[in-house]
Amino acid sequence: MKKDLKAVVLLSGGIDSATTLAIAEDMGFDIYALSFHYGQRHAVELEAAGRIAQSHNVARHLIVDIDLRKIGGSALTTDIDVPKNRRNVEEMANEIPITYVPARNTIFLSYALSWAEVIGSNDIFIGVNVLDYSGYPDCRPEYIAAYEQMANLATKAGVEGKQKLKIHTPLIQMNKAQIIQKGIDLGLDYSLTHSCYDPSISGEACGECDSCILRLRGFREAGVKDPVRYKS
Amino acid sequence: MKKDLKAVVLLSGGIDSATTLAIAEDMGFDIYALSFHYGQRHAVELEAAGRIAQSHNVARHLIVDIDLRKIGGSALTTDIDVPKNRRNVEEMANEIPITYVPARNTIFLSYALSWAEVIGSNDIFIGVNVLDYSGYPDCRPEYIAAYEQMANLATKAGVEGKQKLKIHTPLIQMNKAQIIQKGIDLGLDYSLTHSCYDPSISGEACGECDSCILRLRGFREAGVKDPVRYKS
Repeated sequence: MKKDLKAVVLLSGGIDSATTLAIAEDMGFDIYALSFHYGQRHAVELEAAGRIAQSHNVARHLIVDIDLRKIGGSALTTDIDVPKNRRNVEEMANEIPITYVPARNTIFLSYALSWAEVIGSNDIFIGVNVLDYSGYPDCRPEYIAAYEQMANLATKAGVEGKQKLKIHTPLIQMNKAQIIQKGIDLGLDYSLTHSCYDPSISGEACGECDSCILRLRGFREAGVKDPVRYKS
Repeated sequence: MKKDLKAVVLLSGGIDSATTLAIAEDMGFDIYALSFHYGQRHAVELEAAGRIAQSHNVARHLIVDIDLRKIGGSALTTDIDVPKNRRNVEEMANEIPITYVPARNTIFLSYALSWAEVIGSNDIFIGVNVLDYSGYPDCRPEYIAAYEQMANLATKAGVEGKQKLKIHTPLIQMNKAQIIQKGIDLGLDYSLTHSCYDPSISGEACGECDSCILRLRGFREAGVKDPVRYKS
């Protein structure tokens, strides 16, 4: 397998980004994992990202500090309460949740683009999917296509015609169960991942936020036991 | 003049962004000025940005810390020497300078987009111009158009059809002399601005870097004396 191609993989530490990393690795890319510390309540995600990066022997794992808290506007970065026990997953997926961080993926992809240019990579991977998160505007295929087009006009290599940058979204049409099944096929250890928006201090998942509910449903539908710990 | 419209204005503290702010203000917008601390050598720019924001009585001036240094790749953020005494301004403008920060405007605009969504603004102003900085891929009109298209797919308001975001680039076809003339017409005090890539510790401009050379030529062509201090 060729190993001279570098990919920047956005790695939050959740199921989707971990699976995306495993897919990029399986495609033969050297992995440059990029995580963000952005004042999120669930900073425990970053520990998960570190575990995943280490377990997959990535070429580099860069954690960038960004202060989205100054900008505000989301339950993940401010003091708005995270919604709990919403069992209607379909409804959840069709609204824009208050946990939406304005332009978050746009900011994340912009750092990925910058790093890709510096290391000479043409390939950025992001684990968005339109099914479980259709409420997030920046998880839709038309958004990703527009981003890719912009990105190819933004960089030196793009302008010089030396680079054709691709934003890979291998999960975009998969549901959570399919994502989990794919990861298991690739030997991914989901006990390393973290999804909960509102974990306990000791890192146990709440089991009640939107993210936990989607995760648990995904494992149930995939017929696999979720290996992470939940508050009992 | 209506004063209920908010604009996010990217404010570096240089001539272009200060003039852009004055133009947005003249158009009747309430100004939300956005600056970045990104480990640039010329952090003295941020003091200039603060002076300009204060002098123009902006609604808010937000300074966001971003660590582009971790990503690297530019003379403005690493230890590569800044080029000096390059008198051929045309040549300067037709190459991509080593002071180019990969995807910098893409990152800056992404924060602006996030803030615009939070405060309910449809208008982002950025002082790019294609004439003096044609070497920067992310200063070209086609790049800005692609960014705007992407931005309108990225946000909640865009998706809900409630917002049509515009990226304003009032300087894009102006040369430095025209920009300075425009600012003077609007009463802008250019002694508040800072341009030098390599200032002395006391804040005097070097007069020799690309940015000083373009600035000095602009003032000369506008027939106006540059009010900032230079090393003698």
